[in-house]
Amino acid sequence: MPEKLIGVLTAGGDCPGLNAALRAVGKAANAYGMGVIGFLDGFRGLVENRTIHLDPSKLSGILTMGGTILGTSRDKPHRMPVGSMGTMDMTPLAVDNYSRLHLDALVCMGGAGTVKNAYRLLKSGLNIITLPKTIDNDVCGTDVTFGFDTAMTIAAEAIDRLHTTADSHHRIIIVETMGHNTGWLALGAGTAGGADITLIPEIPYHIESVAEALLRRSRQGKRFSIIAVAEGAITVEEAAARAEAGTEISPDDEEGGSDKTARLAQKLQALTGLETRVTVLGHLQRGGTPTPADRLLATRLGARCAELISEGASGIMVAVKGDDCVPVKLGEVAGKLKTVPPDHPWIRTARQVGTCFGD
Amino acid sequence: MPEKLIGVLTAGGDCPGLNAALRAVGKAANAYGMGVIGFLDGFRGLVENRTIHLDPSKLSGILTMGGTILGTSRDKPHRMPVGSMGTMDMTPLAVDNYSRLHLDALVCMGGAGTVKNAYRLLKSGLNIITLPKTIDNDVCGTDVTFGFDTAMTIAAEAIDRLHTTADSHHRIIIVETMGHNTGWLALGAGTAGGADITLIPEIPYHIESVAEALLRRSRQGKRFSIIAVAEGAITVEEAAARAEAGTEISPDDEEGGSDKTARLAQKLQALTGLETRVTVLGHLQRGGTPTPADRLLATRLGARCAELISEGASGIMVAVKGDDCVPVKLGEVAGKLKTVPPDHPWIRTARQVGTCFGD
Amino acid sequence: MPEKLIGVLTAGGDCPGLNAALRAVGKAANAYGMGVIGFLDGFRGLVENRTIHLDPSKLSGILTMGGTILGTSRDKPHRMPVGSMGTMDMTPLAVDNYSRLHLDALVCMGGAGTVKNAYRLLKSGLNIITLPKTIDNDVCGTDVTFGFDTAMTIAAEAIDRLHTTADSHHRIIIVETMGHNTGWLALGAGTAGGADITLIPEIPYHIESVAEALLRRSRQGKRFSIIAVAEGAITVEEAAARAEAGTEISPDDEEGGSDKTARLAQKLQALTGLETRVTVLGHLQRGGTPTPADRLLATRLGARCAELISEGASGIMVAVKGDDCVPVKLGEVAGKLKTVPPDHPWIRTARQVGTCFGD
Amino acid sequence: MPEKLIGVLTAGGDCPGLNAALRAVGKAANAYGMGVIGFLDGFRGLVENRTIHLDPSKLSGILTMGGTILGTSRDKPHRMPVGSMGTMDMTPLAVDNYSRLHLDALVCMGGAGTVKNAYRLLKSGLNIITLPKTIDNDVCGTDVTFGFDTAMTIAAEAIDRLHTTADSHHRIIIVETMGHNTGWLALGAGTAGGADITLIPEIPYHIESVAEALLRRSRQGKRFSIIAVAEGAITVEEAAARAEAGTEISPDDEEGGSDKTARLAQKLQALTGLETRVTVLGHLQRGGTPTPADRLLATRLGARCAELISEGASGIMVAVKGDDCVPVKLGEVAGKLKTVPPDHPWIRTARQVGTCFGD
Repeated sequence: MPEKLIGVLTAGGDCPGLNAALRAVGKAANAYGMGVIGFLDGFRGLVENRTIHLDPSKLSGILTMGGTILGTSRDKPHRMPVGSMGTMDMTPLAVDNYSRLHLDALVCMGGAGTVKNAYRLLKSGLNIITLPKTIDNDVCGTDVTFGFDTAMTIAAEAIDRLHTTADSHHRIIIVETMGHNTGWLALGAGTAGGADITLIPEIPYHIESVAEALLRRSRQGKRFSIIAVAEGAITVEEAAARAEAGTEISPDDEEGGSDKTARLAQKLQALTGLETRVTVLGHLQRGGTPTPADRLLATRLGARCAELISEGASGIMVAVKGDDCVPVKLGEVAGKLKTVPPDHPWIRTARQVGTCFGD
Repeated sequence: MPEKLIGVLTAGGDCPGLNAALRAVGKAANAYGMGVIGFLDGFRGLVENRTIHLDPSKLSGILTMGGTILGTSRDKPHRMPVGSMGTMDMTPLAVDNYSRLHLDALVCMGGAGTVKNAYRLLKSGLNIITLPKTIDNDVCGTDVTFGFDTAMTIAAEAIDRLHTTADSHHRIIIVETMGHNTGWLALGAGTAGGADITLIPEIPYHIESVAEALLRRSRQGKRFSIIAVAEGAITVEEAAARAEAGTEISPDDEEGGSDKTARLAQKLQALTGLETRVTVLGHLQRGGTPTPADRLLATRLGARCAELISEGASGIMVAVKGDDCVPVKLGEVAGKLKTVPPDHPWIRTARQVGTCFGD
Repeated sequence: MPEKLIGVLTAGGDCPGLNAALRAVGKAANAYGMGVIGFLDGFRGLVENRTIHLDPSKLSGILTMGGTILGTSRDKPHRMPVGSMGTMDMTPLAVDNYSRLHLDALVCMGGAGTVKNAYRLLKSGLNIITLPKTIDNDVCGTDVTFGFDTAMTIAAEAIDRLHTTADSHHRIIIVETMGHNTGWLALGAGTAGGADITLIPEIPYHIESVAEALLRRSRQGKRFSIIAVAEGAITVEEAAARAEAGTEISPDDEEGGSDKTARLAQKLQALTGLETRVTVLGHLQRGGTPTPADRLLATRLGARCAELISEGASGIMVAVKGDDCVPVKLGEVAGKLKTVPPDHPWIRTARQVGTCFGD
Repeated sequence: MPEKLIGVLTAGGDCPGLNAALRAVGKAANAYGMGVIGFLDGFRGLVENRTIHLDPSKLSGILTMGGTILGTSRDKPHRMPVGSMGTMDMTPLAVDNYSRLHLDALVCMGGAGTVKNAYRLLKSGLNIITLPKTIDNDVCGTDVTFGFDTAMTIAAEAIDRLHTTADSHHRIIIVETMGHNTGWLALGAGTAGGADITLIPEIPYHIESVAEALLRRSRQGKRFSIIAVAEGAITVEEAAARAEAGTEISPDDEEGGSDKTARLAQKLQALTGLETRVTVLGHLQRGGTPTPADRLLATRLGARCAELISEGASGIMVAVKGDDCVPVKLGEVAGKLKTVPPDHPWIRTARQVGTCFGD
């Protein structure tokens, strides 16, 4: 009989590297004499007690697979949709299932929203450990999240493809990346892909400055431009209205999606007279085989997670710190969002090679 | 002084393999003692006499490059946009430039629309040779067009990525491919990517049949489905209305694009109660490095084109026929569109492995 | 109870697309009311009666997977290695197992060697159907084999990578591809990758001509060259010796591999004074996810195979013929090898764009 | 006239990201009002005064290109090969050319060997700035080098491909990676690719332990194994002999390459009776388009390099430190090699998921 029993779930949007992390948690847990049970479909499986035993045969061959073999959902224990009845607080069921299974720890792999939900469960008495998983890279307390490198790679390679079309047709092409309310993905992919203009939520833009940058390139004889825009990018006017209304940005794991980018394209075409097209990358950024860098990172986090649990850790997020992975108190990071500081070194880099941020 | 002088242009949407074909025309032309001049930006460059000399240095290193070093446009000589004045018939200018340059042949690389425009120039007295280039594979008289394999590869790999997301979230995901008014791309990528449902213009669909197929999968315990939909796919009702109105489908090189697919998603979600998302691949399908298969194909067509010109060919399209490339009279293929016959072997294959076409 | 029962095995070297073909045979067989049993590890599993039932759950999710879920081996029924005892003719066991399972047909997926072995079983009374699978493309009677496009893609993309190294270091780089005794792979990848020199078994080369071609490029100021060499390429001297000895090339599925290519590099470096390096692609060419084109092709062949069996076909290979798949009598193709005709259109193409074959 | 003039060269083995770094140095230098001259073919170009002006047109479109537009060589100024005469100390020529061009700084992009050579030039009075470039990741003083992520990605994806072959044929496959005398590449790619055994120079191995690990897997019913071996991996016996002889490992930029790995395969096959094959990745690991992560990293380093020069920095390496890039004194890092500490967190991770190191 194993010394300890760990539960594990994957919550929020699916993300490359989840299976690599599950494999590492499971393999390392076994090495430490612990057993592992997986809950299906995020917190919903915890509440409904739908589980599978993560034995070695389940963990074999999944290192390179996208998605999550456990399934995922955006449901939160304390506000879970129940048929047509609205939502209910299912926390007591989650706590009850945890106890009846005699779990020693529950590993929650998720982004900023999941960390918040996991922290509630911690306060309800469960021993929670989280792993920072998200393509958005917006989790506080860790150098980076797994999934980000894959999403950045997909987005940058999409920009590569669009370059040849933009160049051949002498067009402006706007590429909308994911990222929720942060600009890490647009900034990273934009710089790696050589975008001429990058628009991120943390630096509200003047549409006239963007148009002027396009016209300046045109006057220099450059017959195309690439704009990388984060789904959460906003104009200075929108930022002012939001500040006035006191709207706060929360790290909830809701999906973005809007036709803001289509309207931006129309306005820029009107302001510049240059043919402008939009490509929305959408879910392409979260699917498919993780990059080797993400597989390595997810393996490091998952293995360290099992090690920390075997040593009795509780109420922590396993965070990346340089070449190492370290525990961080959940209370210190829950509810916080890691945005791009406007003076971040990557911003400086991008400006130095000529990227316009529209500010 | 070269024996003969060839002009070459690339028209219509940009397409992977154009540079490989230009390189092959140029290298083989030189081997046959002929010179090559490139017109910039499609037929517009012919009309405006904007040219570059395609000497060996220009052709080096472009085999793997996406887009076209000549630039392209959708302008037609006989209806060319002129400032805010509407359009004018610029054919005489095209003919004049051709004569003044003492060209022996004009190679036009393009899709079904370009073949039509090129045929008009042939009738105006120019010696025209076309190469079948398009990601849509809708050119008559050739086994296949270059660009198609690359686009199919990109679309199928996108379906691969979306599979993991659909699976993890238990969703319906609809992938819209290009293809204009034909279904080759959706059919090829859908079958290669394992789409559960494929919707193409040649087989109008009943939305209820599609919904029923989704529910059937759901009842079988399959928690996700992938739908590959061609941008030109239509319902039986739309097909009937179109037939009634006598609307004809023409091979013009216009771009598609609509929010039909978004509406399809809404309807299917309403009919099935299953969460449904859309990804529009758009320009990603035409950019970037061509697949090696497309590079080989474009090289074969380009080299054969130069050979045929050196032998005095006129008024032909160079067509793929098995391992060979053969001349086909332009008059036999101009103005025709290669659609997918409803009893085509690929349709039969797709049905045999369980694909639903909604008919 | 299913109407008919099909056995299936995969033999010879593993090859991208095998799982796609297995999935298509299985899915289409089910649609025609037939059951499918898989033999493990090629002909060995048939002899040892090691089987698995290929029910739908086994076929799900394998479309994109490399390798073969059945395993493979190079063992031949009539000459099967038995411990340290040498080999034995196990054909009677194969025939016996076939009968006891009441199979209606045995599908053998394999290359030229497998076709030969399968034909022996046909003559022993089994109803054999083969599918042309091999990265070498050397099977007679079919336009192409599945696996070839993937291998050509991998080899051409390797040439792309080596181009940048060759260019930066001003080197000769020799890339050895697979292909057994035929040059399809080296020819296709070489042309698609822009190799300057391509050496294939069907066109024996003079090493002096190769050295001269390298020096000519050097004199033209081109500071690097790429040579694509098939593992079976031979010099004119070797070809003469082989002809004298009456050595015949057989389509047996033996693996190549030698240090011939290393010696070629040494000789060329000595003859030219140019720094020369070798990369042997080896097994990289046969592994990993098949290209979408190969998945489509394997699906077409597999589905058609099931259809033909349901219609009572016997003693055939399912062959690719244009967009269709057609039955070809096994007796017409067994024991034959499809080599590259020296006047094949692809050779002409390669010469037209300047490729040297060393002849 | 620009305020300052920078020279730049790329030395040692070519490496993905060199062009991205050159572009960033050039673009940022221009933004700071400085001009940039490139020396061709590494230190040789400095000695022979072969230069090109890196104006904006040269820097456009190179972000995604592999190799280096400047060319590279392994020549060292103080021991430069001169015809058949052996080598000469060309440092005075290098110093003289630097002065006559009125350079304010010389940027040397290279690995551990280049840092050593650059440091000699610093001591000869040149203002040297180095950028840590190498696929080996063996440069001291920086978190990571550019090129490493691309090489690790290529190697891990090769392991993915070989997995399917190993699995289908029930074989041991040994993959030899580069890395000189360090194990970063084998360790990173091995862990990301799920290698069962990883052999690196820093942990000498017992061949019997490796054989035993293979047999253990075989007894557990696992029918294949993947071994990632660094080109510099050694047995405990070799390590002891080397220690006895007092042989020191130097950071010189010499190329590896041996048939040690072939002999390892033979021994393991003899010890285990399991079929064993070798794939040597070789130059494939250094060519081709850099990963987006490497493009971002090279851009960050290149832009920061220009900034530091504009601020008057001298005698430094620009090093990666978290999200930032910081100057490090050349004297502190020259001549040192960053090896993998046997207790490095990545080693612990690999052991936790079951990797055997043969120790």
